[in-house]
Formats: sequence, C-alpha cells, structure tokens
Amino acid sequence: MLSSGKRLFSALLHVQKRPCQPSRAMRLVQFQTPHLEEPHLGLESGIGGGVVDLNTFDPTLPKTMLQFLEQGETTLSVAKRALATQLPVLPRSQVTFLAPVTRPDKVVCVGMNYADHCKEQNVRVPKEPIIFSKFSSSIVGPYDEIILPPESEATDAMAHVAGFTVAHDVSARDWQMRRNGKQWLLGKTFDTFCPLGPALVTRDSITDPHNLKICCRVNGEVVQSSSTNQMVFKTEELIAWVSQFVTLYPGDIILTGTPPGVGVFRKPPVFLKKGDEVQCEIEEIGVIVNKVV
Amino acid sequence: MLSSGKRLFSALLHVQKRPCQPSRAMRLVQFQTPHLEEPHLGLESGIGGGVVDLNTFDPTLPKTMLQFLEQGETTLSVAKRALATQLPVLPRSQVTFLAPVTRPDKVVCVGMNYADHCKEQNVRVPKEPIIFSKFSSSIVGPYDEIILPPESEATDAMAHVAGFTVAHDVSARDWQMRRNGKQWLLGKTFDTFCPLGPALVTRDSITDPHNLKICCRVNGEVVQSSSTNQMVFKTEELIAWVSQFVTLYPGDIILTGTPPGVGVFRKPPVFLKKGDEVQCEIEEIGVIVNKVV
Repeated sequence: MLSSGKRLFSALLHVQKRPCQPSRAMRLVQFQTPHLEEPHLGLESGIGGGVVDLNTFDPTLPKTMLQFLEQGETTLSVAKRALATQLPVLPRSQVTFLAPVTRPDKVVCVGMNYADHCKEQNVRVPKEPIIFSKFSSSIVGPYDEIILPPESEATDAMAHVAGFTVAHDVSARDWQMRRNGKQWLLGKTFDTFCPLGPALVTRDSITDPHNLKICCRVNGEVVQSSSTNQMVFKTEELIAWVSQFVTLYPGDIILTGTPPGVGVFRKPPVFLKKGDEVQCEIEEIGVIVNKVV
Repeated sequence: MLSSGKRLFSALLHVQKRPCQPSRAMRLVQFQTPHLEEPHLGLESGIGGGVVDLNTFDPTLPKTMLQFLEQGETTLSVAKRALATQLPVLPRSQVTFLAPVTRPDKVVCVGMNYADHCKEQNVRVPKEPIIFSKFSSSIVGPYDEIILPPESEATDAMAHVAGFTVAHDVSARDWQMRRNGKQWLLGKTFDTFCPLGPALVTRDSITDPHNLKICCRVNGEVVQSSSTNQMVFKTEELIAWVSQFVTLYPGDIILTGTPPGVGVFRKPPVFLKKGDEVQCEIEEIGVIVNKVV
C-alpha cells in the first residue's frame, strides 16, 4: 500500500497558496487511484482541487471515513496537521472520488424543510420535522451514475436466507399514524423498538418457515395468535421484491409482518404501557421477552 | 479472551441427546458472560437451552454475527462441526443474550403482510409488499427493556456535527407518492439514489451553514436555486429532534432538505430520464455531477 502510495509523490505539487480562508477549509474525501489497492482518505485542496493523501501522510490513520469519524479528535488533529503542512497534491484527473462517507449506520432525511419548497407545493410549513430515510446501500460517489432500476426477477431467493429469528416490531402509534407526515419511520425506529432473538435459527433447521405458529402475549395474556401461513408475501417473494431495487447485504434483516390482534385495532384500542411485559414467540424459533419501561 | 473462555469449560456439560431433528437445529446467538471481555458467538442448544461458545470451539471465528455471515459457507461449516460435536454447554442462567444480529446495514420491514391482519383492519390485502424500515440502532436483545422515550432537549447539537457535504436525494416519484402504501422509503432508496460528496467539509471550514447558495442544474439548466437560509429547521434543531428518539452514531448522515424547483411540482411535471446529467452545488461545499443511466 505504502509503496504504491509513494510512487504517487511524483504527482505535481500544487498546494494552494491563496492568503484567505477558503484554502484552509478542511475538505475530507474518500478516494481511489489506479495505484491504490483500496480507497484512501484525503484532503481536497479546495473546491475542484487536487487531493492530499492522508494515509500517506500518516499511515496509522484509518482508511475509511467511518472509522476516522469514530476516532473523533484524535484523527481530526492529524488531518489538521496535514492541512497546515505543504504536501504533494494528486491532480484531480488521477483521482476517483467515493462518497465521503460509505456504509454509515443510517441516512436520515428531512421532508419539506425549505420554506420556499413548501410554498411551491402550496402546503403549510411543517410544525415538526418530517423524517424519512434512505438505506446506506443507496449511497454512490459524487460523480457516479444514477441507475434507473429495471424490474427484474430474483431467482433462488431462499438460498440467500441465513436463517430466521423472532422480532418485535414495536410501534409508537401516535407517531406512526398521526405525526411525522404519516411516514411510519419515526414511530417505528425509536431506540430499543426492535427486540430481536434469541437465536438466528438457520434455514435448514426449520421444517417450514411458512407454517409456524406465531403469537404475542402481554402480561401473560395472548393478544396475537396466528400462523406464518397467513403471510401474503412469503419470504422468497419479499427478497425478490426488495432486491429488485436495493442491494441486500449479509446480516440485513427483513421483518416479514405482524399477525392480527395488535392493540391499536382493538375496540377500545390497547397500548403498551410502562411495566408491561411482552412475549413474542414463533414455533421452532423461540421466544423473546421484553419489559416496557 | 481465550483464558477466560477456558475457565468457562467448568460449566455443566449438557449437550442434548434427543434422537430426532429438533436437537440438530442450528441456533446461532450473540451472547455475553461476566467472564468475557466482549460478546461471543454461540449455539443455543434448543429453545430455552444453554449455549455452546463457538469462539472457544474455534478461536479463528469472528466474534460478531455480521462478520460470521459475511464469511458465508466458511464460517458456517465451522458452526456445523461444532453442532456435530459434544461440547460444554454454558447454562442459560450464566448468559446474557444480545440480538443475534447487531449493526446490520438495514432493517427492512413489511407492512400488512398477514392476510388475517388485513382483515382485522378491514383493508384489502396489498397487491405489492409495503416496505418500510427501522434504523438498526433500534435493535436490542431478546430480553432487553423497551424504553418509551421522554421528550428531551438536546443541547450543544452543533458540536456533534463533523461537517457538511452535498447530497442528491434522488426520488422515484411514482414509487414515493403512489405505490408502497405512500411510504416514501422505497422510491427514495433504490441503489445509487444517494450521490454524495465530493468532500466532507468540516464545520469550522464553513462560514455559515445556514446562509449558503444551493442549486441544481439538469443538462446545464438551473432547475433549483435557493439558499440554505430557507431551511425551516436548522441543522442543530434537526439533530436535537432526531436524537430525542434515535441514537446518532459517528458517520450518520442527515439530508437536511430540498429547495424548490423539483420536477414533480413543475407544470407540466419534469422527470429525470436516461442520459440526463444532474449537477447539485452548494456554495463553499462543492458540486456533485451524476448522469442518469
């Protein structure tokens, strides 16, 4: 890695020497060159400028922005030193830019957050932010192509399933149904709202994933009881559907749906409250038990 | 690690010897004990049973399920060997279970996917899967508490911002607005629908993030032109809002909104088509250029 990095030192040295603020801006990038085995971190020398290789400047620095950011001030201070030093600059023509952050935990998005954008739609400016999201698998580099997906068939979907587990898709119904512009995400994604487990039971270990008893008890009382044979779209259909549009990675989870009996559709509706204990069970897979606090 | 692992070998040996299929099920878990420095991978010996420590069985195995799954058949064959071997079983009482998968790239969820659940709501069974999502930060273990969030203040939000970059929030409007149960996720998250970059410009490097020209050109023609001073909720308000409910990690991205001029609200509406070149630019931050293919 380092040796190929060094070869790049022959690149034209053109550190910007503008006297004012702009040249001091810290512009962190992830980039690739034909000489590098894997992407490196760098500093873009101003908008449209060349790139200083941070991993050559300090080989102990991580090579991904995610790790760089996780280390906080430690790595940032190295980048600051690099910014204050005259270093070789790779011409932009030799560099391929990746997105500055790849594989983050989440991409949070905000809807209708420009006053003038609300006006053009003739809608009221929202009183609270409207939050939606993208999967991080949708991220591409600053000059990459945007690909309109063909509707395609996914074959052999089940071969990509590692196994099955029990999940509780906890919902804050007021948030899901009435707030956040009726986008479900926020009411579904509060911290702790996805209990999971206890085991990932491998595919071969299950007799028939689409014929298992599934049930939920609140404080010992059965509130949901059904069978996975009620599923409208089976596991393989869901995988085929989603993977038309989105690349699925090892470890990705699909919550395949919830059976009837959920509190919000009871008459009168019933909601989880502090102190409740919820058990979710699927035959052959297991039970999870979570207390609401 | 290994030495503390070995100490646990004193645990009661109680491999199940049932003659039939159930005892051969592969039930992969992530677990912790007071003696381990970090969580290990294990095999649950049946529903409600004890745990075999896979990392003790083979110290070369990764310790997270995500890495285990990424290695595919290689690691799976090790787990199969462990399953076929009489190994010490940690009693369940000595073990804390984590979720079987933590920090996956995504948690995909399917709405209204039980025929009987549709019936209870008096809604038609959907013709296509309705896809929504949770952030993986919402995952907790099978016996962990579900925490109802207090509405709290986030102070010093801007101190948590590493920097700013340019993003293009590409949308498949038909999918966002008419299909997928009006949940925006799917039409927003196709692969390549989040071009980003070119640089992460650190917070100190920006004069005022809420007073920057922002513009979008399609095939050279300006279609969106505004200023970040039009933002309804400023960056610090968005962080405070989201972090009331959701833990934000280093590297997480917030797309803070889109200015007016978007194609769908034009009369007649204009949509991106194959061959179009889109430039998104923010003053002081940079330009991204993406071709639609």
